[in-house]
Amino acid sequence: MSHILILGGDGYLGWPTAMHLSSRGHEVTVVDNYYKRAICKDLHINPLYEVPDLSVRAKRWHEITGKEIKVCVSDLTNINSMNALFNGKCNYDWCVEKKYTGIPDTIVHYAEQPSAPYSLMNNTTANNTISNNLLVTNNLLYSVKEYSRDSHIIKLGTMGEYGTPNIDIEEGWIDIEHNGRNGKFLFPRQGSSIYHTTKVMDTDLIWFAVRTWELKVTDLMQGPVYGIETEESIIDKDLSIIFFYDEIFGTILNRFITQAIIDYPLTVYGKGGQTRGYLNIKDTMQCIEKAVINPAKDSELRIFNQITETFSVNQLADKVYNVGQQLGFNVMIESIENPRKEAEEHYYNPKYQGLLELGVKPHYLDDLVLEGMFNQVIKYRDNIKKDIIFKGIKWI
Amino acid sequence: MSHILILGGDGYLGWPTAMHLSSRGHEVTVVDNYYKRAICKDLHINPLYEVPDLSVRAKRWHEITGKEIKVCVSDLTNINSMNALFNGKCNYDWCVEKKYTGIPDTIVHYAEQPSAPYSLMNNTTANNTISNNLLVTNNLLYSVKEYSRDSHIIKLGTMGEYGTPNIDIEEGWIDIEHNGRNGKFLFPRQGSSIYHTTKVMDTDLIWFAVRTWELKVTDLMQGPVYGIETEESIIDKDLSIIFFYDEIFGTILNRFITQAIIDYPLTVYGKGGQTRGYLNIKDTMQCIEKAVINPAKDSELRIFNQITETFSVNQLADKVYNVGQQLGFNVMIESIENPRKEAEEHYYNPKYQGLLELGVKPHYLDDLVLEGMFNQVIKYRDNIKKDIIFKGIKWI
Repeated sequence: MSHILILGGDGYLGWPTAMHLSSRGHEVTVVDNYYKRAICKDLHINPLYEVPDLSVRAKRWHEITGKEIKVCVSDLTNINSMNALFNGKCNYDWCVEKKYTGIPDTIVHYAEQPSAPYSLMNNTTANNTISNNLLVTNNLLYSVKEYSRDSHIIKLGTMGEYGTPNIDIEEGWIDIEHNGRNGKFLFPRQGSSIYHTTKVMDTDLIWFAVRTWELKVTDLMQGPVYGIETEESIIDKDLSIIFFYDEIFGTILNRFITQAIIDYPLTVYGKGGQTRGYLNIKDTMQCIEKAVINPAKDSELRIFNQITETFSVNQLADKVYNVGQQLGFNVMIESIENPRKEAEEHYYNPKYQGLLELGVKPHYLDDLVLEGMFNQVIKYRDNIKKDIIFKGIKWI
Repeated sequence: MSHILILGGDGYLGWPTAMHLSSRGHEVTVVDNYYKRAICKDLHINPLYEVPDLSVRAKRWHEITGKEIKVCVSDLTNINSMNALFNGKCNYDWCVEKKYTGIPDTIVHYAEQPSAPYSLMNNTTANNTISNNLLVTNNLLYSVKEYSRDSHIIKLGTMGEYGTPNIDIEEGWIDIEHNGRNGKFLFPRQGSSIYHTTKVMDTDLIWFAVRTWELKVTDLMQGPVYGIETEESIIDKDLSIIFFYDEIFGTILNRFITQAIIDYPLTVYGKGGQTRGYLNIKDTMQCIEKAVINPAKDSELRIFNQITETFSVNQLADKVYNVGQQLGFNVMIESIENPRKEAEEHYYNPKYQGLLELGVKPHYLDDLVLEGMFNQVIKYRDNIKKDIIFKGIKWI
């Protein structure tokens, strides 16, 4: 069993990942500075239901399962705070026994500002996204270089790094033949927001560190995640996953289901042909676990495309429409002017074999999954705030 | 004639660019926060001779030529300071008449921490390089988007963004055929230091802004510059170009000539086959001027490789050796353990036609040029501090 640090452990994916790995016997420490909670407070965004802070959740997890998830509330843009996780000087906010677990075998790095619209609200939010995402990543690389070169870093990237190129999207790398000579390069990247661009930059930085310091990194190019529960989150209300349905932090399918429930027309931007790769949150759990137990090699930047199937926005809207209608909701679909600058019809053919080869068994998006999500979200119907669903943050 | 902002106007290239453009009738404003001077003070690095601050130099320029170069001392990582250059709220530290010149036609962006070894001294200097370079670039893009979308941005990139790939290096872009389909992409990039990686990231960010906000940008991938004087710098001692010969800010040829003069063996790292593109500082002046008067088009990211010829480190050392010996210096060449992580022998075939097509007439590196540099540097022989030439800042 491994000792695993989860950076950004308070988020939509961070907390369920912590439980998933803890339940499988790993020693888990979660770290977060509640940056996303602060943004939500500033912008008057509420999740579908409130979730307790990490210490409360970890305590509850321990009461129920007897397993410990250590909690450290700390801003990892600060070099000393990052180093503290590796040199034993960390102050835990919650743990059973105040004893440093030792150098981590694996670090799962989710500690990034994850919203494209937030990154484009204004110059300040753009700068915050750049500083937060790059300094946390750089501090992590330096701490691992300094204290812990054998640790395996699992970094969450995004399929959005590739954009929507006119060629097949490979898993991270491409062989290029040019004027009779050959080279292997990072697959061409172009982010469609400041947020996505910071993820491209993360990859640039990580690739430098891997080549220079011989680190081992798995970079997971993840598509938009959907879902509201995992095996562990349903054990107790206090262990629930934080679920956003607003324009800033709500991923598209989660948002569409919420909209369907309150008779808010599904907002299709422009032509709706925008196609992306998606995955169920349960598969994020699997992918991370498979990456943990099958680490990258020394001096390897291993890249997987972390998706299980692709849909256009129109296809997603149709799926939600059909299941919603069957369940008796008055679902409407409305095409609105696209606030984003993006191709609305385009070629899209990403490869995603690597994680399947490691043994991930996908949960595909069928009517049953959608029905399950409807049934969960409807419990909190009264909490839904209509005015945060769409504000039309513009790309230009 | 244009109104031109020069960001980073205090540097090795910034100040001579200001004079070069001012002498040709452009209205020039220089901006700097003396960040490099602060680093030099911290690290006890001296240039070959002291140069006055920007206000003194601009005043002298005005006394001699009757032309005005406005001076603003300002930290452009601050959003308000950047905006002030575009909305008329700028406080000038020196100018003839306190009158805002209006929105710039061109912005030349040199305002970056330019040293690879500095960026790799430690986690803090790496973070400072990332924050400074990316926030200034992002603030500039936002200000132009907000106030001045017709302005042409001329950004200094570096040939180091490309690294040393096994294929020919094109000017910024490459057509890729893959599985029977075609796309045009930014040429693959991988920086060989944190500094170089920030320049790769700048390009990522600029390309996002160009595509999304329809800005017009020329990104100049410049090789290491050498030289100690331009047409304007020789007019008066107070107008001299700042010249570094130390490991951190001294570019290789400037450093080698200084070393030769004080009998300090030329420090060839490893095998010395490291090949790069170089140019004379007089040609930097020409390249910038040609880019100013031939701007990029709307929504265009135009990329030029700003070099005039390529040399290996061994070739440069041999050139300095030969001319130095002829001038009576006891030049030695010493191969030392490479503190950097880099290929010491590699394929290198960059294209650099774009600027020649705009009319740049190169000053090639011949014996006369080298002799001229020797004759200038030797005047300041007594100022040379041996202990700052090589400290062996390690890449790993």
